[in-house]
Amino acid sequence: MLDCTYRVEVPHRTGQLARVMGAIAAGEGLIGDVVTLSVGREASVREITVEVRDGAQAQRISDLIDAIEGVRVLWHQDRALMRHQGGKLRIEPIHRVHSVQQMRDVYTPGVARVCTAIAQRPELAHRYTMIPRSVAICTNGSRVLGLGNIGPVASMPVMEGKAVFYAQFAGISATPILLETGEVEEFVETVVRIAPTFGGIHLEDISAPECFEIERRLIERLSQPVMHDDVHGTAVVSVAATIVACQQAGVELRAATVGQLGLGAAGFGIASLMVQSGARRVIAFDPLNAARERVRALGVQPATMERVLSEADVVIATTGRAGLIEPSMVRRGQVILALTNPDPEIEPERAERAGAVFAADGRSVNNVLGYPGIFRGALQAGAREINVEMKLAAARELAGLAGEGQLVPDALDQRVHEAVAKAVREAAQLSGAARPEHAAVDL
Amino acid sequence: MLDCTYRVEVPHRTGQLARVMGAIAAGEGLIGDVVTLSVGREASVREITVEVRDGAQAQRISDLIDAIEGVRVLWHQDRALMRHQGGKLRIEPIHRVHSVQQMRDVYTPGVARVCTAIAQRPELAHRYTMIPRSVAICTNGSRVLGLGNIGPVASMPVMEGKAVFYAQFAGISATPILLETGEVEEFVETVVRIAPTFGGIHLEDISAPECFEIERRLIERLSQPVMHDDVHGTAVVSVAATIVACQQAGVELRAATVGQLGLGAAGFGIASLMVQSGARRVIAFDPLNAARERVRALGVQPATMERVLSEADVVIATTGRAGLIEPSMVRRGQVILALTNPDPEIEPERAERAGAVFAADGRSVNNVLGYPGIFRGALQAGAREINVEMKLAAARELAGLAGEGQLVPDALDQRVHEAVAKAVREAAQLSGAARPEHAAVDL
Repeated sequence: MLDCTYRVEVPHRTGQLARVMGAIAAGEGLIGDVVTLSVGREASVREITVEVRDGAQAQRISDLIDAIEGVRVLWHQDRALMRHQGGKLRIEPIHRVHSVQQMRDVYTPGVARVCTAIAQRPELAHRYTMIPRSVAICTNGSRVLGLGNIGPVASMPVMEGKAVFYAQFAGISATPILLETGEVEEFVETVVRIAPTFGGIHLEDISAPECFEIERRLIERLSQPVMHDDVHGTAVVSVAATIVACQQAGVELRAATVGQLGLGAAGFGIASLMVQSGARRVIAFDPLNAARERVRALGVQPATMERVLSEADVVIATTGRAGLIEPSMVRRGQVILALTNPDPEIEPERAERAGAVFAADGRSVNNVLGYPGIFRGALQAGAREINVEMKLAAARELAGLAGEGQLVPDALDQRVHEAVAKAVREAAQLSGAARPEHAAVDL
Repeated sequence: MLDCTYRVEVPHRTGQLARVMGAIAAGEGLIGDVVTLSVGREASVREITVEVRDGAQAQRISDLIDAIEGVRVLWHQDRALMRHQGGKLRIEPIHRVHSVQQMRDVYTPGVARVCTAIAQRPELAHRYTMIPRSVAICTNGSRVLGLGNIGPVASMPVMEGKAVFYAQFAGISATPILLETGEVEEFVETVVRIAPTFGGIHLEDISAPECFEIERRLIERLSQPVMHDDVHGTAVVSVAATIVACQQAGVELRAATVGQLGLGAAGFGIASLMVQSGARRVIAFDPLNAARERVRALGVQPATMERVLSEADVVIATTGRAGLIEPSMVRRGQVILALTNPDPEIEPERAERAGAVFAADGRSVNNVLGYPGIFRGALQAGAREINVEMKLAAARELAGLAGEGQLVPDALDQRVHEAVAKAVREAAQLSGAARPEHAAVDL
C-alpha cells in the first residue's frame, strides 16, 4: 500500500476534474487530498493523492489519467519519498548572532566564563547548556518496523520521524544516533561514552533479545532516564487502549485474566505493565522458551496459545502473524486487541461476529502518543529513571483522555502530550525519582 | 575581563542617564551597548553593558550607580551567562505535522517505503535523510580554550557555540557529541561506531598529542571528511592572515623563511600548511622534542627559538606564553603574528617599535572564519576528506576577501562563508576528493 501524488494539468472547464476522478476510480485508486496549485486562464494544476497497492497500479492510473483528452500528468511520485527529501530535521541556533558583542557572548571570550562556571559547579550544566532538554535516539537498525535488520543508515528516516514528534509535541531536542554494531557490549559502551551529551536515552528498533540486555545495562550504568520505546512506549499506549476497551466492554481489569500473545519487545513490555497495573492475572504465550521464561520472573504465567485464548478475558496480540487467531478460538464475551500492523491476528469484525464483546486492531494504537510526553515529564522532573509509576501514570492519563468511540486520544492534539508530561512529572515526584537540581527548567 | 549587563531604572528627565554614565566611568568600566527596554511617565528602564575586569569591579560599579538619587540597579549579571541560559541550540522539524496524511508520510506507514528504498540502494540515504548535511562536533573536553582539561560537560557551551555558527553561516546541522574518555583507542572506536549518523566529523578541543593520533586514525577508518578544527581550521585562518600580512609588508612568501613558535595543535597545523602553501623554508621551535620531531616529517626544520627569531622573515607564534618575545629579539623588517589570546607573545606596537615591518596579535584572527565554509564546501562536493588543496583554497580565498586594513575578512559577513565553501568545493572537485553521489544536494 502506498500514497502516490499525481501532479496533473487539467483544462479549466466544468466536468474536467470529475473525469480525472473517474479515471482514478477506474484504476481502483482511493482518492485522498486534492490540492489546487494554480488556476490559469486555460488550465489548472492540482496535486491529487491516491492510495494504491503498488508501483504498477500507480503507473496504470497515471496512464489512465493521461489518456483523457486535454489532461496531462506532469509527474507522479510516492508521497512519503517526497516528504523525506533532504531529511526532516534541522539544528538551529535559538538566537542568531548579529553583532560583535553577541559573538563575544556566545563564543570567545564570553563562553570561557560559562565553561569555567560549569567546571566549578557541574550542576550548572543544567542551566547553561541544552543537555537537560536533549534526548539521543539510539539504534543499530536491527529490527526496524516490520522490515527486520536493515542496518543503521536505512533506519535513519524512522529516527528522524521520532525526533520530529519530540520537537513538535514535547519541545525536546532529539538527535538520532546510528550505531554500527550488533553486539550488546559494544552498543552499551558506545552509548555510555557519549551519554554526557544527553538528558535522556531513547532506544529504538533494536532486535530482541539483545534489546532487553542493552536497556538493562544502560539503566544500571547511567544516571539519566533510559527507555526502549518499542518495549515501554508501546506498552504504555497499548495498556491505555486496553483500559479503554475494557471500560467500553464492561470488563473489570482488576478482576480479569489478561492474555498476551507474542513476547517480543512490545509483548514483553505490555505483559509486564499489565502485571504492574494490577490486572488480577496475566498469562502469556510465545513460541520461544527464553521469551516465556523472561516474563515469568515478572509475575506473568507462561501458557500455551490455546490456554491463553480459552482462559483470558482480555487478549492482546503482538505476534507479527496476520490471521493467527481463528474465529473458532474466540471465547464469547472476550475483549480482543489484535495489534499486529498492517494486518492483525484477526479482523475486529470477524472477532466480534465470533463472539468477542469488543475487538480492535493496531491502526489506532499510535506509538507517538507515548514517548514525547513520557520523556518530557521525566526531563522536567529531572528524573533519574522512567519507573513503573511514571509509565502507569502515562497509560492512565491517555486512557482518561480518549474520546467517545476512541481507544486512545488524538496524537496530533498538543494538549494530550502536555497532559501525559504532567502526569509523568507528578508520578516522578511522588515516587521519589525526581531530582529537582536536574530538572530541565526550559522545557 | 567580562561583559556585565546592568538593568537600571532611571528617572525620565534630562541628564539622568549622563549621571549613570558618569558613575560607570568613575568605577572604571568601559561602556558598550545601551538598550532602552521601556519608557514610562516617571522612569525608563535600560540595559547597559559594561566591560569590567572582574566580579568585584562589577559590584562596585553597581553600588556607584545605586547611590545616585532616584536611580535603581534592578540587577546586574554576566552577559555571557545570560546568553547561555537554557543552551543555544534547538533541533526542529523542517516541516511540522498537521494532518493524519502528513503523519502517514513522515511516520508509519510511509516511512517504511523510504527505509526500504535506502536498504536497497544505500546511496539514497544522501537524498532522503539529513546525514549528508550533518556534522558531529566531537570532544572529550581535554583542552578547552585556555582552560585546560575541564572535561566534556563543561566544554558543552563551546560545542554549542560552534554549532550555532555552523547553522548560521553554513546551513549545516551540527550536533555536539561529548565523549567521556581520555583514551585514544576508546575515542576512536566510539566515533567510528556512531559515524554513520554524520556526513562529517569535526574534532574539537582535544589535548595534544592525543589529538593527532585520534585524527589520523579516524581519517584512516572513515569515508567521510574528518577535521580537527584546532589544528586545521585555525591553520587555514592563520595562513590567510599571514598571506595578507606579507602582502601589506611587501614580503614575498614564496621567497621567505617562515618561523613557527609553538607546535601544539594550532602551531602544528600552521607549520604544515605553510610548507604546503609553498613557503620557501619553514623552521619551527617547541620545547617538546616529540613536537619538533612530528613536524620534521612534514618538511619543517626544527630550530632553536633564537634561530627562528633571527632567521625568519615571517614569525608566527602560538605558544600560549604572553610576553615571550622580547623587543630585542625582533629582527628589522620582520613580519610578526603573535597569536596567543588574550595576551600575545609581544604587543604589536612594541614589535613595530623594535623594527618589525608589520605586527599583529590574535584578536582579529577569528577561527569562526574557517570551519563552517570548509565543511560546507566538503559536504557539497561529497568529499571523502578535507585535503591540502581544499585547505589552501580556503586560506587563499579568505586572504583575497580581507578588506583594506584587515588581516582577515568579517566573520559575520555571510558572503565570506559562501565564498570559502565555493572555493573548497571546487578544490575538492579539481583534486579528485569529490564524490558527486555523496554530495549534500540540500546544502
